[in-house]
Parts: sequence; structure tokens; C-alpha cells
Amino acid sequence: MSETKSRMMRVFSFGTMTRNGSYSSLQGMSNLATSAPITATDLKQKEKLVVENGREGGPSFTQMISFVLVLLASTPVIFGIAQRAVGVNIESNDLSMHSKDSHSICEWGDESCIMGKELFERHMALSRITEDPGIINRPYLSVASAHAARQVQAWMEDAGMTSSINIVGNVVGRYEADPSTSNPKTIVLGSHFDSVNDAGKFDGVYGVLAAISVVKVLKQRGQRLPFAVEVAAFDDEEGNSSFGTTNTGAKAFMGEYSTKEAAEQLLEQYAGLEDAFRKQQINYGLDSKRSGIVQGLMKSAGGSLDDVAAFVELHIEQGPILEAEGRPIGIVDAINGQTRMQVRYFGESGHAGTVPMTMRKDALGASAEAVSEIERIGNSNDGLVATVGTLNIVHASSNVVPGEVMFTVDVRAPTDEVRLDAVNRIVEYLESVRDRRGLELQITKTHEAPAVPMNPEIRGALATAISEEGLEDSPDSVRILSSGAGHDAMIVGNKIPSAMLFLRCAGGISHNPAEWLSPHDATVGARVVLKYLENLKAV
Amino acid sequence: MSETKSRMMRVFSFGTMTRNGSYSSLQGMSNLATSAPITATDLKQKEKLVVENGREGGPSFTQMISFVLVLLASTPVIFGIAQRAVGVNIESNDLSMHSKDSHSICEWGDESCIMGKELFERHMALSRITEDPGIINRPYLSVASAHAARQVQAWMEDAGMTSSINIVGNVVGRYEADPSTSNPKTIVLGSHFDSVNDAGKFDGVYGVLAAISVVKVLKQRGQRLPFAVEVAAFDDEEGNSSFGTTNTGAKAFMGEYSTKEAAEQLLEQYAGLEDAFRKQQINYGLDSKRSGIVQGLMKSAGGSLDDVAAFVELHIEQGPILEAEGRPIGIVDAINGQTRMQVRYFGESGHAGTVPMTMRKDALGASAEAVSEIERIGNSNDGLVATVGTLNIVHASSNVVPGEVMFTVDVRAPTDEVRLDAVNRIVEYLESVRDRRGLELQITKTHEAPAVPMNPEIRGALATAISEEGLEDSPDSVRILSSGAGHDAMIVGNKIPSAMLFLRCAGGISHNPAEWLSPHDATVGARVVLKYLENLKAV
Ligand SMILES: [Zn+2]
Ligand SMILES: [Zn+2]
Repeated sequence: MSETKSRMMRVFSFGTMTRNGSYSSLQGMSNLATSAPITATDLKQKEKLVVENGREGGPSFTQMISFVLVLLASTPVIFGIAQRAVGVNIESNDLSMHSKDSHSICEWGDESCIMGKELFERHMALSRITEDPGIINRPYLSVASAHAARQVQAWMEDAGMTSSINIVGNVVGRYEADPSTSNPKTIVLGSHFDSVNDAGKFDGVYGVLAAISVVKVLKQRGQRLPFAVEVAAFDDEEGNSSFGTTNTGAKAFMGEYSTKEAAEQLLEQYAGLEDAFRKQQINYGLDSKRSGIVQGLMKSAGGSLDDVAAFVELHIEQGPILEAEGRPIGIVDAINGQTRMQVRYFGESGHAGTVPMTMRKDALGASAEAVSEIERIGNSNDGLVATVGTLNIVHASSNVVPGEVMFTVDVRAPTDEVRLDAVNRIVEYLESVRDRRGLELQITKTHEAPAVPMNPEIRGALATAISEEGLEDSPDSVRILSSGAGHDAMIVGNKIPSAMLFLRCAGGISHNPAEWLSPHDATVGARVVLKYLENLKAV
Repeated sequence: MSETKSRMMRVFSFGTMTRNGSYSSLQGMSNLATSAPITATDLKQKEKLVVENGREGGPSFTQMISFVLVLLASTPVIFGIAQRAVGVNIESNDLSMHSKDSHSICEWGDESCIMGKELFERHMALSRITEDPGIINRPYLSVASAHAARQVQAWMEDAGMTSSINIVGNVVGRYEADPSTSNPKTIVLGSHFDSVNDAGKFDGVYGVLAAISVVKVLKQRGQRLPFAVEVAAFDDEEGNSSFGTTNTGAKAFMGEYSTKEAAEQLLEQYAGLEDAFRKQQINYGLDSKRSGIVQGLMKSAGGSLDDVAAFVELHIEQGPILEAEGRPIGIVDAINGQTRMQVRYFGESGHAGTVPMTMRKDALGASAEAVSEIERIGNSNDGLVATVGTLNIVHASSNVVPGEVMFTVDVRAPTDEVRLDAVNRIVEYLESVRDRRGLELQITKTHEAPAVPMNPEIRGALATAISEEGLEDSPDSVRILSSGAGHDAMIVGNKIPSAMLFLRCAGGISHNPAEWLSPHDATVGARVVLKYLENLKAV
């Protein structure tokens, strides 16, 4: 039993905490690690251990296995066996990455390897950590999510960072400043590591892994900067879960749940969330009572953010512009504001053969006019986009004139002025169609988010780095893009000076297995961030 | 057992056959009827009898009960009990209608009663014969359908007709010509008695019941005409079944299955149909081997149609024109031809936030343009209608630019020339949108039916009758409409001079519980047909 216990602690042995509340009760046990090989019989014993520790409402068998997986994450020999038990497919030649010796796959160990071959291969390795074999799917608070968090944490440690995982699933690593710096500030790099269902290999993950590779280069050099560097791997950016939450990781990082009231409100607002946190707490052997969960949420905030000077997020573009223009990298000027609406036209259904055209109140005819006008309005201003993504005819039949149609409208623009003007024009048009055709109209605004402008000073410094790396002729010629999608930088950027770099991705395709960032372009992003950090004298 | 048997035969005791192949093996047993009351215990015995007669693959319990119901259709006392057993709700004050004494509800017995109060109340009674309590649903070859057929047959007998039911479900009654006429011709009146799911009370049924009421008036008068009158109640006009058949009744009447090859082909083409026929045969105690079913189908044809001079169908308009113009009745000039197409646009899906408007290949944008143009083309010619009734975005999401859209197009017109011209213009436009937007396009014609013009001579005679009944100033002022929906007259009209009368219905609503034909207008249709028959000297 003692050997089992010692191994159980092995995984919680990483470093000490700085910002984000981790499982501090387990700290100080790092010296219990063992290197003895584990057999399948041992695995069975471990399952038993976890089951015995289970409580009413505790974890499922799969979650138990997941815990065992996590326990064994640094033990390559047994890892393959455990993975097969939950259908995770990680090929044997990736196993070495799961140990703290993962840099051994990169024998020559130079900087281009770390920010190139190794960085790219880590994407492939992480892509195999999934809930559903055959596709990439890492929902929030899933087994795969916990597993991926542990993998990310191992890589942070490998890069010379101290690290922690907190209850919301964020993994934060810290690379300390040059000790000669008094009151050093902190630069935070990062993105998210959760994924949509049937995802690609780069969305979010790239910003985490590239940041880790940048820090690893600093460590290899033995170089300390006049500021600390943290890498934040946020969970739940995509909102891929049954809870209905989104951006939980970034929100927690920004202290949104740092009061008891806010933490309790979060649990009350989203059904199933408390239970999922509880199971995760049990997996980690922590206090799973509500008070324990609330405490964990409060600690998930980093406390004061006063020392944080900047947040920089690397992310694939998820759009086609950079590729179309032959550029590997661009700078985001703003994360677009967004208005989402649900529109319903109510007309009169009728027989497609017997109701004359002149006597119809065709809700689809009205909607078709609206779709065309929304497209025209979207085209009327650079950077503005307007999309009808869903359209449903209620009780549709090929021989029935549509009596009711509902569709969604999604409007995004880099400035709120442009967006709100477009929304007004769309609403006016919808009403004019209603009046002209004698229908009923219902418009529901389902979401409204203001644009989040990125910090001009950081943008300037990033433009200089891009130019110095020879990727553009001058800082002024760097491509400026707005971000049509939401990102962690949208949450962080509300309080902390933030910037985003976009990397070219093939065909602009994202949220899709075909998502592709070339190894070359993956390296480009890391090089630019490294150059940016090197250029910073003090912050 | 002998009493049971004699009662079992009671229901098959009606008349002798003329045109449509009936269950002739049961003819000649009409003298076995008994009038002794039946108790619930008797009912149990009958169930037992039927169960004992069951074979492998035989009828379900519900179907057995249905058979018993059919057996008891002329025995009001037990009828309510049996109905409750299968959830059919017929109120006790309608029970008298199910006996051959149903005219007793109409105490004064004059013609306005027969074609008025009684006609209307029979609609209410038939509406309660349904597969699904609470709504009207008489699918093809269902228990409710068999029950309704027996009820219609009883009313035919009540009107002085001989009658029969054949395997496809058609009920045909015949009122013989004046015996002094040599080689009398036949005028066929009728429509269908099946219904769509969640139907109204008048679609189809009206044409059957009004025709029966006209014949009943002739019988009350003791009047014979210089031609025979048949009332055809067709089954399966609506195609409401899992088999995929439609118009089976009218097609059988026209001899479409009168050869062994055609009968066997029908059974092979539609999955489940043979089994449904078999169960019906068992219910009726007939030969349920395939050869027996094929024989039944061959007999369902009326043999030579040479003696049939005309087919006249009364039907609710199912459209809003007559009501809008304040007219109770109109004459159909043609049953519109129809083209149905399925259209698919293939563009490129993309993120609604990140793909600029100018780089999109939005399949919904293309489809919206198409829907608007199809509506304009529909409006370009009187009588032409063009409808997009279904439209589906493949993998729709509010934040994804639609990459693939499919929609249906339904084009109908009273002449083939107008329809085909509209179809050509639609296809040309679809292609121009494809080319302009750089999409892929797939057009599949799924259905094509030519227009069926109604017979001008019968139309003229009906216009005269309408005018003589004081419903229009002159024959020339009668409203002429085209029929946008298909009807039995579309099948019959291919070979036999045919005509249709449309009756005003509320709001043009049909295929809906709200379907409404006023008692006044129901009478109008019967009066016009009676006048038409009276005016015919010889045919
Ligand atoms: Zn992302
Ligand atoms: Zn009908």
C-alpha cells in the first residue's frame, strides 16, 4: 500500500505555487516518487484503492481509470496499458514525452528543435488525448481534459517552470525573473487547451505549447529576464460541455470567482457543474464538499493582478486572410464585438398547390429577402461580417407554403459603432419586410458583447519583433487583422494590456479535423514571441 | 356457433356486384342475418372465434377487434362497447347512423334533410372513425379505414344502392337505371374517404357522402334515371401509409392492376403492402395466400369502363379563392400539372466571425436569392404557383457560414406549357447564381405530372346546373378554377370524361383539424349534382 501511495503522490510533486491556487495540500510530497516499474496487477490495485476512496455520488469507473492514468502519467511502461483501458490512443513513440525526460526525443537540443520539431510533435501528442477515439474531443471537466492538463503541466516543468493546476482546470506555469530584479513584473503568455467536438490539432493548444517552447529555450540558455514569464493554459474556452459555461478558465484567472458569493453563484447558475467539480475533487483526493469546491474556486483566482504587465496570446487565424496574402503571421487590432439575434417570421401556412401566389403570407419568402439584405449589409463595411447560420421552417413540407420561419443572425465588427449601425439597419429591414408582406415578426437579441481592443504598445512591440525576425519589411507593413472569433484575450484584455498574434492556417479552416498549421508557421509564432521578450528591457 | 356464424355473415349481406370485384365468395348469404341482441359475452366469443381462425403472420389483436367491430356495425347496442375496446369514440347519438335505419334521425325525411342535416351529421360521424383518438387519421389499410369503409357501405345501402368493398379498399355503390332503358350508361360520382394524419372532416369524405345523399333523394322519390349512378369511395388518395403508395383506389378502379403482372408488380414495388393486404384478407376470412391477393387485385378493376359516360367529383376547394370572392361553388378547368425538384447548393462552410464576406461561398446566400426569384416567377403568370416548402442547411450552426443547403421546389400550373416554361426559368436562374457565386449546384427532378384537363361538355352541364340552382346569374358567370392539388379525378380523368366541383371552405384551410365546409355549402354541392343528373336526358 505504501508503494501505491508514494506513486500516487508522484504526480503532484511539481514545484510551488505563485499565482493560481493549486492543490496546495499535496505540496511537499514530491520526495515520495518512485521509479519501480508497475504491472497490470498494480493497476488493478490502484483501481481498487480509488474505488475504496469513493463516496456517495463519487466518480464513475472511467473517471477512476482516468485518475489512475493521471497517477501514471510519468511512468511510460504502464501508460500504454492504462490508455487502452479508456480508449485513449497514444502511440508508443510519443510515450517519452509523457515523462519529464521528454526533451530526449530532441537529441540535438538546440533552439530550433525546441520551437520546431518538438513543438510540432507535442501538438500531435496532445491531439491523441481525447474523449472519443478517432476524433479530437476534450470537453470541459472531462477525463481527457484532466489528462491533457497533466500533460501540459509536465511540459511546463520540463521547460523549467513551476506549475499548478486549479479546480477550474487551468494549468499555470511560472518562469521566475532574474533574481537581481526588484519587484519584477510578470508577462503572461497563453491560450486554451480544451477543444470543440471533432476538433483540429491547433486551436488553442498552439498558444499554450508555443509559449512553453519559448520558456524552454530561455531555460536551455540559462537566461533569466528582468520579469517573470507565466504560461497560462486555460480550460473551457470553447464552451464544449453540457453545463453551458464558456471561458470559465480565463474568467477564473481574472478573479471572477474570487468571492464566496461569485463562486456559489457559478455553481448555482450551471446545472451539473458542481457535480463535475466534485468528481474532479474526488479524483484528486481533495475535499469534495461544496465548501471545498467553493474554496477551490476562490483560490482559482490569481489574487492581485497588479504585477501582470501584459498578456500575449498566440492563436491560429481560423480565417483565410493571411494565407490568401501569403503572410505567416499578423497582429490583432481588436476582438470583434458581437450581436446575436434570433428572428422569427410568422406568416400563414397553406397548400402549395391551392393558395394563389397573391394570397400567400410566405414566411420563407420574407426570410429569403432578409438573408439577402443581411448579406449585403455585411458586405457594406470592411471588417464587418453578418451571417445567417441557421434557418428552420416550422413544420416544413415540400407541398406546404411555409407559415413560420426562424433564423439566427450573427453580426461582428472590430468597433461597436460599426456593429450597432449594422444591427440597426438589419432590424429596420426586417421590419420593412414584415410590413410590406403583412407578417408578424419577433426579434430576440440572444447575445451582445462589445469589441475588445488590443493594447497598442504591445502591438507595436510585436510588430517590431515580426520585422526583426525578417517576416515583414518593416513594423508598419505587418498585417493587422481583427479577430472575428472570441478568445481568452477577450476576457483577459478587459483588465490587462493584451495582444494577440494570428498564425496562418490552411484554408482558414478551424474547428475541424482538417485544421492545419504548418511546422514552419508554428515556429514563426514562437520566434516572434521570443524576440518580443528579448526586446523588453523592463516592464 | 351457428348464431355467431350467421351474424358474421350479416355484414357481407349487401346486394350484388356490378363493376368492382367484391368478396363474391360471401355473396348469397344475406338471408342468414339475425336481429337478436348481442351481449359483451358474445363479443368475447367472437374474439375467440377470430383468434382461432388466425394463422401465422395473421392479424394483431387490434385487427381482430376491428373485425368484430365490422361484424357488429349494424348492431347499435353492442357497438359502443366494441368501439371502446379500440379507442374509437363515437357518441351514442350517432349510433343510429350505423344501422340501416339511420334515416330515422331525420324524422321529416324530406330532400333538404337528406342533403342537409343528415349529410352534415354523417361527416361528424365519419370523423370519429380514426386510428388515433383525439385527431382524425385514417391511413391506408388501417383498422379505421376498414371500419370507415363498412360505414360508407351501410350508407350506400341505406340510399338504395347495391354495394361492394374490394381488396384495395374501394367501396362502390350502384343505383340502377330505369329498367326501360336499353344498354344504360353509367355516371360515376365520388371521391376518397381516407385521410391525412391529423386531418379535417371534409377532404375527400364530402365527395363521397354528398353523392350518397343525392342517390338517397332519388330513392326517396322512387325516381330512376335513364342511366345508372354509381358512387365510388376511393381509398388511398392521400398516400397516408408507410407503403409509399398513392391513389391506389382510383388506379385500381381504372384497371391498373387488372393483369396478373401488374398486380404482382404492385406488391413487389411497395414494401409492406402485401402483408397489409394479407391481414385484411384474414380479417375478411378470405384467401390470404399471394395468389388470393393477386386475384383480389385483378378483380378490383371494374372490367370494361365502356359504359361509364362521366365521372363527377365534389371536393372542398382547399384554397381561399371562392371564399375571397363570396361564391359557394366553382368548376375546375384542369388539375394542374406539377414539377417537383430537389436543389442543392454546395459552397464552403466557414467560421462566421473569421471569414470575410468577400471570401465566402455561402450556400444560404445563394439559396435566398433563388427563393426570392422562384417566388417572383410564381407571381409572373396567373394560375401558376411556385413554392419552396423545405429548406435545410447541412450542419447548421449560428456561427458557421452555411456550406451546403438543400431545398425543394414545387411548380404547378393548369397548362403544361406554362409550367415547363417556369421550370426552365427557375433552372436558368439557379445556374446563374451558381456561376456568379462560384458554387456547385445539383438539381434533381423528383416528380413530374402533366396537367389533366376536365371535360368541357360536363363542365358546361354543371355550369348550367349551378345557374339553374340560382347560385350564379348565368352559366358563364360561374367561377372557373384550376386545381392545384391532385385528386381522384386526375386518375379517372385520364380515360373517362371527368369534371370536378369545388366547394368554398373556410380560410382555404385543409389537411388540418380546422378544415371547415359550412352545412349550407355542403348542401349546395349536392343540389348542383342532383340538378345535373336530372337535366341529363340520356348519356
Ligand atoms: Zn481557440
Ligand atoms: Zn382530397
